[in-house]
Amino acid sequence: MAPRVGAWFIGARGSLATTATVGLFALARGAAAPTGLTTANDEFADVPLVALDDIVVGGHDIYEVPLAAKAASLAAGGMFSDALVEAVRADLDRTDDDLRLIDLSGPTQQDHIDRMAADIADFRDRHGLSTVVVVDVSSTEPLPADHPAFHSEEALRDALADPTQRVLPASAVAAAAAIQAGAALAAFTPSTSLNLPVLRARAEAAGIAFAGQDGKTGETLLRTVLAPMFTARNLKVRSWAGTNLLGGGDGATLADPEAVRSKLVSKNRGLHSLVGDDVVAPLHIDNVPDLGDVKTAWDHISAVGFLGSRVTLQTTWSAYDSTLAAPLVLDLVRVLALASAAGQSGAIAELGCFFKDPWGSDTHAFADQTAAYVAWVQRTGVLVRLAEEVSAG
Amino acid sequence: MAPRVGAWFIGARGSLATTATVGLFALARGAAAPTGLTTANDEFADVPLVALDDIVVGGHDIYEVPLAAKAASLAAGGMFSDALVEAVRADLDRTDDDLRLIDLSGPTQQDHIDRMAADIADFRDRHGLSTVVVVDVSSTEPLPADHPAFHSEEALRDALADPTQRVLPASAVAAAAAIQAGAALAAFTPSTSLNLPVLRARAEAAGIAFAGQDGKTGETLLRTVLAPMFTARNLKVRSWAGTNLLGGGDGATLADPEAVRSKLVSKNRGLHSLVGDDVVAPLHIDNVPDLGDVKTAWDHISAVGFLGSRVTLQTTWSAYDSTLAAPLVLDLVRVLALASAAGQSGAIAELGCFFKDPWGSDTHAFADQTAAYVAWVQRTGVLVRLAEEVSAG
Amino acid sequence: MAPRVGAWFIGARGSLATTATVGLFALARGAAAPTGLTTANDEFADVPLVALDDIVVGGHDIYEVPLAAKAASLAAGGMFSDALVEAVRADLDRTDDDLRLIDLSGPTQQDHIDRMAADIADFRDRHGLSTVVVVDVSSTEPLPADHPAFHSEEALRDALADPTQRVLPASAVAAAAAIQAGAALAAFTPSTSLNLPVLRARAEAAGIAFAGQDGKTGETLLRTVLAPMFTARNLKVRSWAGTNLLGGGDGATLADPEAVRSKLVSKNRGLHSLVGDDVVAPLHIDNVPDLGDVKTAWDHISAVGFLGSRVTLQTTWSAYDSTLAAPLVLDLVRVLALASAAGQSGAIAELGCFFKDPWGSDTHAFADQTAAYVAWVQRTGVLVRLAEEVSAG
Amino acid sequence: MAPRVGAWFIGARGSLATTATVGLFALARGAAAPTGLTTANDEFADVPLVALDDIVVGGHDIYEVPLAAKAASLAAGGMFSDALVEAVRADLDRTDDDLRLIDLSGPTQQDHIDRMAADIADFRDRHGLSTVVVVDVSSTEPLPADHPAFHSEEALRDALADPTQRVLPASAVAAAAAIQAGAALAAFTPSTSLNLPVLRARAEAAGIAFAGQDGKTGETLLRTVLAPMFTARNLKVRSWAGTNLLGGGDGATLADPEAVRSKLVSKNRGLHSLVGDDVVAPLHIDNVPDLGDVKTAWDHISAVGFLGSRVTLQTTWSAYDSTLAAPLVLDLVRVLALASAAGQSGAIAELGCFFKDPWGSDTHAFADQTAAYVAWVQRTGVLVRLAEEVSAG
Repeated sequence: MAPRVGAWFIGARGSLATTATVGLFALARGAAAPTGLTTANDEFADVPLVALDDIVVGGHDIYEVPLAAKAASLAAGGMFSDALVEAVRADLDRTDDDLRLIDLSGPTQQDHIDRMAADIADFRDRHGLSTVVVVDVSSTEPLPADHPAFHSEEALRDALADPTQRVLPASAVAAAAAIQAGAALAAFTPSTSLNLPVLRARAEAAGIAFAGQDGKTGETLLRTVLAPMFTARNLKVRSWAGTNLLGGGDGATLADPEAVRSKLVSKNRGLHSLVGDDVVAPLHIDNVPDLGDVKTAWDHISAVGFLGSRVTLQTTWSAYDSTLAAPLVLDLVRVLALASAAGQSGAIAELGCFFKDPWGSDTHAFADQTAAYVAWVQRTGVLVRLAEEVSAG
Repeated sequence: MAPRVGAWFIGARGSLATTATVGLFALARGAAAPTGLTTANDEFADVPLVALDDIVVGGHDIYEVPLAAKAASLAAGGMFSDALVEAVRADLDRTDDDLRLIDLSGPTQQDHIDRMAADIADFRDRHGLSTVVVVDVSSTEPLPADHPAFHSEEALRDALADPTQRVLPASAVAAAAAIQAGAALAAFTPSTSLNLPVLRARAEAAGIAFAGQDGKTGETLLRTVLAPMFTARNLKVRSWAGTNLLGGGDGATLADPEAVRSKLVSKNRGLHSLVGDDVVAPLHIDNVPDLGDVKTAWDHISAVGFLGSRVTLQTTWSAYDSTLAAPLVLDLVRVLALASAAGQSGAIAELGCFFKDPWGSDTHAFADQTAAYVAWVQRTGVLVRLAEEVSAG
Repeated sequence: MAPRVGAWFIGARGSLATTATVGLFALARGAAAPTGLTTANDEFADVPLVALDDIVVGGHDIYEVPLAAKAASLAAGGMFSDALVEAVRADLDRTDDDLRLIDLSGPTQQDHIDRMAADIADFRDRHGLSTVVVVDVSSTEPLPADHPAFHSEEALRDALADPTQRVLPASAVAAAAAIQAGAALAAFTPSTSLNLPVLRARAEAAGIAFAGQDGKTGETLLRTVLAPMFTARNLKVRSWAGTNLLGGGDGATLADPEAVRSKLVSKNRGLHSLVGDDVVAPLHIDNVPDLGDVKTAWDHISAVGFLGSRVTLQTTWSAYDSTLAAPLVLDLVRVLALASAAGQSGAIAELGCFFKDPWGSDTHAFADQTAAYVAWVQRTGVLVRLAEEVSAG
Repeated sequence: MAPRVGAWFIGARGSLATTATVGLFALARGAAAPTGLTTANDEFADVPLVALDDIVVGGHDIYEVPLAAKAASLAAGGMFSDALVEAVRADLDRTDDDLRLIDLSGPTQQDHIDRMAADIADFRDRHGLSTVVVVDVSSTEPLPADHPAFHSEEALRDALADPTQRVLPASAVAAAAAIQAGAALAAFTPSTSLNLPVLRARAEAAGIAFAGQDGKTGETLLRTVLAPMFTARNLKVRSWAGTNLLGGGDGATLADPEAVRSKLVSKNRGLHSLVGDDVVAPLHIDNVPDLGDVKTAWDHISAVGFLGSRVTLQTTWSAYDSTLAAPLVLDLVRVLALASAAGQSGAIAELGCFFKDPWGSDTHAFADQTAAYVAWVQRTGVLVRLAEEVSAG
């Protein structure tokens, strides 16, 4: 029997996780085509990725809305059809039983971590899962001020045990829980998570595979596709201005200047890495409620070419952010499960194509990232097959 | 003393060749930066490419306007500054002496080919050039009807010797002359040229290096950069509509439905190769005189993503086509001279990044083409250096 | 009791008529707001327009698909919600009884006209309607070759009575029927209709009110809004290029070069009238099936300003054409009924704001048209009220 | 002999005033066509506007760069040609003699006002001008905090006489000087100027004609052209997002958040007036130095139409802001001189078409403003002619 894999979402009842969950069940039931899943591309046909109907969904959230109700509200906004929700309603209802409220009743942050880690371990045991991949898809949080506990295991332990302190932001609590539960981890938001040196060290010591950070879905994807064209042709980019319009929950979250700061920093990092630090790159995110979950992004790129001539490019990208991101979340579950099966640990740098700010890599050019990703998946797939054959021996 | 290389332009007094010539002299004199030249990128710093001030310009044209006058008219249209024309006026005037009218006074097409080949050989001898690279940058010509002489060396010889026949279109006459003169050849237009099997065979038999076809400068470049993004992310492109607006000489030429046909076919070939033959791809080229030599291209791309959601991308690209193309023409002179120095012959498939319709390759994805190009130039450079050392040794 | 008015659609089962019919019933039942209806604007609050629930729908078509089925297919394409169709399903089913197949079984075209006129008269009698307004919303037809019968009543009578001739195109047959039935007429397409001098004379002799031609809904509306800005500011427009992408039935119809010719001529007439005949104005309509009924139009406008400086404007308009047009169709029914009540006949020039090619007017500037329209409706409303009071007196 | 008129620019050596001055002389000498001047439109052919070669230029500035040098730097940026600067160099050099440094050496602000008023009066006397029109085209200044002296003539007098206070911002000092000199006044920036009630009262008491505020040249012009289209068609605008990119001096000034605040408020006022206060309208101005004086503005408009369907419009406007504004500055000189000749005083509400935030009017729809403007100029022209005839009689 094929090993089953768990997908554990932090923010499991949010737009993104719900879209991923609806899509997973729709694909498993044959009610939708795997469009948008990179792991469904032909080049991976021979890779022993977990089958979609062998993925079990669980997760944490701070809200209690039933998945089917959340899915229905997304359908009302045009994300997918009502019929699709109906087709997977039973799966969603069953999955509600595997979702847990984040329990902050314990006096210390260590208690919170213990509770979350226990939830994950219990999920693994109940379903007999070979691997659990935790994917953080919760809302972007503000950057925390620096703290000694971020840099020392001992200071961290003391702080976590101190009922008067709440030193870790939510994304780091979740990451600590994943490490403690021995789960693989993907950070799909620009929040703190494993950016804390102390947690990065824990993750490496625990031998888990992890990947991040901040899903590269729309405008930033486009930028890391286009920027290498200018450099290959030796055209000097002088400015790259961008405006993002979106409504929905993300629009409201990102209207908060503090929350948006980490997002903007993350969005521009790849751009500067590709076309230079002196490129003028104003960037805005505006909350425009009537646009709902469709994000519209306008970029204006100005470059200098041969003999000082001007080259101008404008792009307008328009898409549901959640349906761009959801298949990537499923991809990450599959490939981190593959990495785990191959015994890999630490930051998987070859997954950089999924992220605005890739851990373990400073390559941002999307074509280069894609080539590295494809080669790694194929290579890792061969290793896993070999190991299976040896073990089946 | 470093070997000098000849750049022989078919259409030497046109906008593109004039821009390339002005730019070459401006670079050689330090009056402009090599922006837009791929061969000026850092990764080629160690490759023994011919120095820009070791390139001598000659060529054929059917017009007699002095280069400096043509350059002044381009400057008036904003392509580059009057000051730049002044800075290289003496070079342009001197170059006029190396340009030849295409002489069609002979009774047969073989006479025309002989005359052109003699012009090229004379140019090489007078300047003591190690290599001449012929670059066809003349106006796009209509596709000729098929003819037996296109497929048989014997039939071709008979036709060329028959004073009542004019079987070859102008681009093929020029290509035959380049072959006869032993020059390398780059086809920067979508005209017939070495697409005739009989001429392709001649070129291969003659051992010349050649590359083509149809310079990939603006909209098509952008398309072959963007299309792989959609496939990498498993987004299904359904339609890719395009409209090109331009004035200038190209605008007028391409307003001719017959001439534009070969252009449109060439432009869409890469797109269909990358995103599938069933993509709906209407494409227009409109002559809009007031826009002058600035080409503005609008593309509208519609794709389907996860769970049937819609992804839409619009791009508006605006640039002087000639200043995009001119540095590539200089690049082709340098890299075909390098290939010749390395003893390579036949279609150089690794130069596909320069062309809409690459000879010897069916790779259209620009990032893949770029990687192949960079590796080939570096590799060939090493071979040339080794050969030089052996020969010096 | 308020007088009831009939809306008789030529093409009653097409996308536009179906959308107008669904919308009319939705508004009458309070299931939708009157967004998009100009007659619902505040400035008309005191005008005695027919109430929406006093409009009865009938019409001709060559297809037999039930209205509710057609409405459901439009809802599937996203035009409006399934719930809206359900809300008015009973109304649609009842309306099916008032729709007639176009009967071409008679031997002569006069027989066809008689049959259609009888259908309209019967509809008026059965429902006790004070007025019937015929609105031609059928597919665009090719321009017919000129014919003597187009210019002489006598020649027309002979031709219509001759069983070997089919001299009138379908839109003119419908117009002749409307005239014969004494109905008011609005021509919402660019087809022949009352452009034939002989029919125009008949319409005037019959004393019917009529208005046309070719609904101004999207790109052309935008153009007649923008062009006066350039002239008011004395900016010289040099080129105005346009590309329209659409799928659905209209996309397929307009992919026919013959059918599109009348459309393109009609679209550009207003533009040239506003900014001059020497403006370069290439215009394309492309059939892009995956876009469905959403029309996307890109315009690129280039103008010269002070001291020869360049002004460039690009617009991208995206909307369901049918939902732009449908409320205008309802407006036309209401205001032509008002005109009839006021005893007006002939071309109502003040309705030019509805049309690309306004009958009786050469004003294309939308603001001027709007001012004339508003004043005319208010003035005519006062006349009708006065007449009612006198008659009630 | 025709009366001559003075144009007195506050900020006379800035980009806008220099462009207007170069253009005025180029037009007077027949070296350029009057494109962009509304007063050159045919409908004003019979109006006794001052001839362009009867306008004398003077002004204040805080800089001392010679006009010809400033003009040359604008030509280098592409605003107009070097040849044009040469054609008017003698005029520019002569005009330098009529420009005055703003003299702040006096101990009180009343001294500064006296000095500036004396400069203006001296200019009028030296040149024998019938009228002087002061046009404030200086940089946008931050909004001042409110002050009692803004509301009481007595408090203002005390404050101006107090050497320890600098209660008026620079634009108000200039306005006070214009009033004191009996000059007409146009406020082309969003700075304080006659917005102070106490100065407005002074201007009215002095009987000068004045008009403002904040030139409507690009994006805002477009918005007040487009917004009435949506309301005429009863389409409900939900959001109108805008991004402006520009370099040059204006880009740097507007990068200052304080300075930009008055600009943004002014830009959005008309929009909200036209489409409602609840429209979501994020608006950004970014300093992008490499774009120089070309302003590029992208707007994204989302509206709801019939049956809840979506209408989306994007516009990209690109133009030299100074060449859009400069002809309007010349227009204002001509029409305020006309108003003065007709004995009109106070806010000339019919000049609202020139301004983002029109004094004396709450009409923002550009077509309505244009109609009022044209009628007023024609009417005023008739009055001036009549007066001339009476006086000549």
